[in-house]
Amino acid sequence: MNKEKTSFSKRGMTLEEDINETNTFYLHSNKAVIHKKPTPVQIVKVDYPKRSAAVIKEGYFKQASTTDYNGIYQGKYIDFEAKETKNKTSFPLANIHDHQVEHMQSVCEQGGICFLIIRFAFHDETYFFPAVKLFSFWNSQFNGGKKSIPYNKIKEVGIKIPFSYQARVDYLKVIDQLYF
Amino acid sequence: MNKEKTSFSKRGMTLEEDINETNTFYLHSNKAVIHKKPTPVQIVKVDYPKRSAAVIKEGYFKQASTTDYNGIYQGKYIDFEAKETKNKTSFPLANIHDHQVEHMQSVCEQGGICFLIIRFAFHDETYFFPAVKLFSFWNSQFNGGKKSIPYNKIKEVGIKIPFSYQARVDYLKVIDQLYF
Ligand SMILES: [Mg+2]
Ligand SMILES: [Mg+2]
Repeated sequence: MNKEKTSFSKRGMTLEEDINETNTFYLHSNKAVIHKKPTPVQIVKVDYPKRSAAVIKEGYFKQASTTDYNGIYQGKYIDFEAKETKNKTSFPLANIHDHQVEHMQSVCEQGGICFLIIRFAFHDETYFFPAVKLFSFWNSQFNGGKKSIPYNKIKEVGIKIPFSYQARVDYLKVIDQLYF
Repeated sequence: MNKEKTSFSKRGMTLEEDINETNTFYLHSNKAVIHKKPTPVQIVKVDYPKRSAAVIKEGYFKQASTTDYNGIYQGKYIDFEAKETKNKTSFPLANIHDHQVEHMQSVCEQGGICFLIIRFAFHDETYFFPAVKLFSFWNSQFNGGKKSIPYNKIKEVGIKIPFSYQARVDYLKVIDQLYF
């Protein structure tokens, strides 16, 4: 893998690309083993041409029943979902699915470190938002509450994730601070 | 999910199906949160028909860079690969890829609980085989050693996984015994 080509000029990279690079750095430096799960696909039709690889000819995207990323850091189970929003003043809860919230609740019950990484593209800020803080916002939307988390709340309750050259979304720094 | 239909008559279920059902039982009874990762697919061509779901028209199966299953059990990170063999006398190491072994080594270094679940279809026996026991067999194949692990070795070093009605491959029982 050609990590040397990574440079500060890589603005405009998506949050997912930044996290994937960060995870590759964590992996190669033996800091943590955290991977993005493959996109779930329902495979309907596959062709098996002679002397070449099987080709998926019909498939559909399935909704994820868990979060995007999980793995291990110093013996602890890590589990998170990454979301980017163009919204300036709030993070719309419609970005998350109820299956994902259920999953995050189960992970918390088992003692895992579970959180969201939320990027506000407009402000160019990326936050670590603990899952336990999400649940009350999530539940209140069904009782007449807001359908989003205000940006100011995320600034207040969340922790800004530092940027570094090798770890563009250096969320383990925040985990060190909160859980170790 | 209609779990009621599960019955002892379900012989002929694959190891993967048995494990998926076991994981569903663990999840619903709040014992553990362990999922199979989606099959990695390289998506090449997608059609976006009007008023209906996107259709993948060309895709390829990618080799997995990690193991099939991971999750959390009582705060501990769980990671394993499941393999079924028709071979009577040994488990061929060709069933595993070097990326997967590297992944298992990294997980062990981080303090995760990492293992193989190996089913010998002929003997109708399913074994828990700790990853740390795999590495010496794996490495010795490149130094003139065997390209497989003898069935007797797996019987000796591994732990037979008990079958129960609700947890058809009750591997947490073995984990309780070995790690708690
Ligand atoms: Mg996502
Ligand atoms: Mg497999």
